[in-house]
Amino acid sequence: MAKSFQTLPGFRDFRPEDCAVRNYLFANFREVAKRYGFVEYETPILEPTELYEKKAGGELNSQLFCFEDKGGRNVTLRPEVTASLGRLVSTVQRDYPKPLRWFEIGQCFRYEKPQKGRTREFYQFNVDLIGESCPGADAELIALSIDLMSELGFQKGDYVIRLSDRAYWQKFGNTKSLSSEQCDSLLQIVDKLEREKPEVTEEKLNVLGLTTAEVQEAICNPASLGENLDTILANLKARGMADFIEVDLSIVRGLAYYTGVVFEVFDAKKSLRAVAGGGRYDSLISALSNGSVDLPAAGFAIGDVVIRHLIEETPHAAEKMQTTINAASGCDVYLVLADNSKQANALALAAQLRSAGIATTFSLTPAKVGKQFKQAEQAGAPLALVVGSEFPELSLKILATRSEETIPADQDIVETISNILNQ
Amino acid sequence: MAKSFQTLPGFRDFRPEDCAVRNYLFANFREVAKRYGFVEYETPILEPTELYEKKAGGELNSQLFCFEDKGGRNVTLRPEVTASLGRLVSTVQRDYPKPLRWFEIGQCFRYEKPQKGRTREFYQFNVDLIGESCPGADAELIALSIDLMSELGFQKGDYVIRLSDRAYWQKFGNTKSLSSEQCDSLLQIVDKLEREKPEVTEEKLNVLGLTTAEVQEAICNPASLGENLDTILANLKARGMADFIEVDLSIVRGLAYYTGVVFEVFDAKKSLRAVAGGGRYDSLISALSNGSVDLPAAGFAIGDVVIRHLIEETPHAAEKMQTTINAASGCDVYLVLADNSKQANALALAAQLRSAGIATTFSLTPAKVGKQFKQAEQAGAPLALVVGSEFPELSLKILATRSEETIPADQDIVETISNILNQ
Repeated sequence: MAKSFQTLPGFRDFRPEDCAVRNYLFANFREVAKRYGFVEYETPILEPTELYEKKAGGELNSQLFCFEDKGGRNVTLRPEVTASLGRLVSTVQRDYPKPLRWFEIGQCFRYEKPQKGRTREFYQFNVDLIGESCPGADAELIALSIDLMSELGFQKGDYVIRLSDRAYWQKFGNTKSLSSEQCDSLLQIVDKLEREKPEVTEEKLNVLGLTTAEVQEAICNPASLGENLDTILANLKARGMADFIEVDLSIVRGLAYYTGVVFEVFDAKKSLRAVAGGGRYDSLISALSNGSVDLPAAGFAIGDVVIRHLIEETPHAAEKMQTTINAASGCDVYLVLADNSKQANALALAAQLRSAGIATTFSLTPAKVGKQFKQAEQAGAPLALVVGSEFPELSLKILATRSEETIPADQDIVETISNILNQ
Repeated sequence: MAKSFQTLPGFRDFRPEDCAVRNYLFANFREVAKRYGFVEYETPILEPTELYEKKAGGELNSQLFCFEDKGGRNVTLRPEVTASLGRLVSTVQRDYPKPLRWFEIGQCFRYEKPQKGRTREFYQFNVDLIGESCPGADAELIALSIDLMSELGFQKGDYVIRLSDRAYWQKFGNTKSLSSEQCDSLLQIVDKLEREKPEVTEEKLNVLGLTTAEVQEAICNPASLGENLDTILANLKARGMADFIEVDLSIVRGLAYYTGVVFEVFDAKKSLRAVAGGGRYDSLISALSNGSVDLPAAGFAIGDVVIRHLIEETPHAAEKMQTTINAASGCDVYLVLADNSKQANALALAAQLRSAGIATTFSLTPAKVGKQFKQAEQAGAPLALVVGSEFPELSLKILATRSEETIPADQDIVETISNILNQ
């Protein structure tokens, strides 16, 4: 066997420096969710395929990472988490006061052609507010997405929230006397407006008795946004967040289960896909529980791949990330053993420092002192603590300044080091 | 469709209270690994099946969660992470100084019959030290596992580290003039000693020209433990950890790729399976890279299922976990809106508190003041901040004591609340 092993196409290895980026994103997701009173849950990565067939997910169905397991079950590596959440909520909701403020961070899978910004696996941060139908809930989720972007270092002008409401198109359809099915078709045409050839759009609209001009007029010059969008805009204005919002009625989101307000977090340059997206899905939990539980719900999701690209292309966000990662990584103290007869003392010292929560490392085999100092620098340790023939007297070296001080035997070494690290 | 959806057999939903337990374990894994200077990596959950065939994993192979993907590839939901780690390390090791101190926390999958302590998916904490062959590296890993148990609230007497060395059995085999294949057979017999019927063991040993009495004598009265185990015992003694170690030469670990020292963290009552286990695997990276990279390595893994059971059955560990979880969960402030005309002010206040990192929640729809206070208690908030007709003057209620104070308009509310929360 001559070839060496590789990851599957579209799957990623995370070296320590990539894992640090992932963990930076996750820490921000958790921090902002917590500020909004959300608690974390998780559901299985593998689910029965019928869970997604029920959800009727449009293009998702053709990208399902599905297979038959050894027990003959038709199973799927989850393409998204909302269906599982609906299943879980419909089972356990009685145990929790409403509304549920729940979030999740986990991997999802789609069998599509790998390309820039599209892997076959990705992590997704899912935020959902369940059991509350008022537009204040939609505003709360949009505010959370804005605070998340701020926390990640993005500023006004880096991104916009594109806000819309499917109810607007329902109302538009009603004034044009469209049937329910025709309204669904209209939403699909609006969803593809930016990507579809104009003549194809016109043809499809004509079938519904409409024209592109009419639809464009409805998008650009709405007579009224409707009560929900007006309330949400006022709500976000009160929070000082109005500047991030752009009403864009051409946004309807591709997934069939959205029922009302929808929104997307979009790179201001629009050079990438939506960074995040979500909306209201008031019928899904009822559908997933066969009508036994009926709870209004809204939520949004953000993937790790596109947001990472956007951070790396936005200098102030990239700098914030790197500064945070650098501060969190590496160890605090490198123990240098300058006298091999003191190895047991050095081990005891390492145990003492570590028990106090001080990240400590050292050479596992005897090595020359110069080599140990080099390893200390490679490990990113700010401090080197030298155990030599003078033990229990120690020598402490601050590597950045190369300054050195002697720590007498009766001085508390944990306290000394903690004080230096916390300076 | 009448039935409601369920998770697949052996797969778990994590409600918020279960997810809090999972996150408590993960936080402890990360904290202790960091203290030992380890950095986190991650590899794909789905890998080519051949990666595991190469590793020759004994009983693992019959439990592989494998299938054919849509592209006709034979793929497997990873049963463990060491093979992926070996693949990654052999590709990128040039970029890092040795030894690598790397850890990982992620899900693994095994297609076996679900039962207590055995799910089809589980999380695993993997700690590996790569590029160092000396017994000090084995001792470092064992010490890390002991510190982890301490951090999880376990005390002496709750668990033991069962320590052994495959080299001991190689030497034993040499004195009995066993061939290399016969030595492998001997290791397999020793591995099953506790579970196999005595007459079957005796029969198998007789084939090798040995008797059970001889093997039991070698386990119970070793003439010499060998240099590695002696060094490790001295090393751990210097760290003050000798009390947790029990040399048990009957431990050889089932997996074929271990080459030297092996150990298990075992529930002292031995009522459960091993909590954690690992050892030295000096040939694996070479095998996974077709000989292009040859690095000695050692590591161990701990799963989330057994350790959770053990924590819950150990009162002092369970109490530590619950105290930590309670302190970390819930929000800090519940905003009570006592005058609906001040809603915009309340929203601005929520945004201000959240921007300062204070976890804040509130009712998303107008509700009676009494109901809002009830929701504040349900949300576990220690503080309720009342926005009423006196705004910008506020009223702050400490829910545990039901004491109340007025916050004048000119008083910094973020500072006031931060001071109370940090008390």
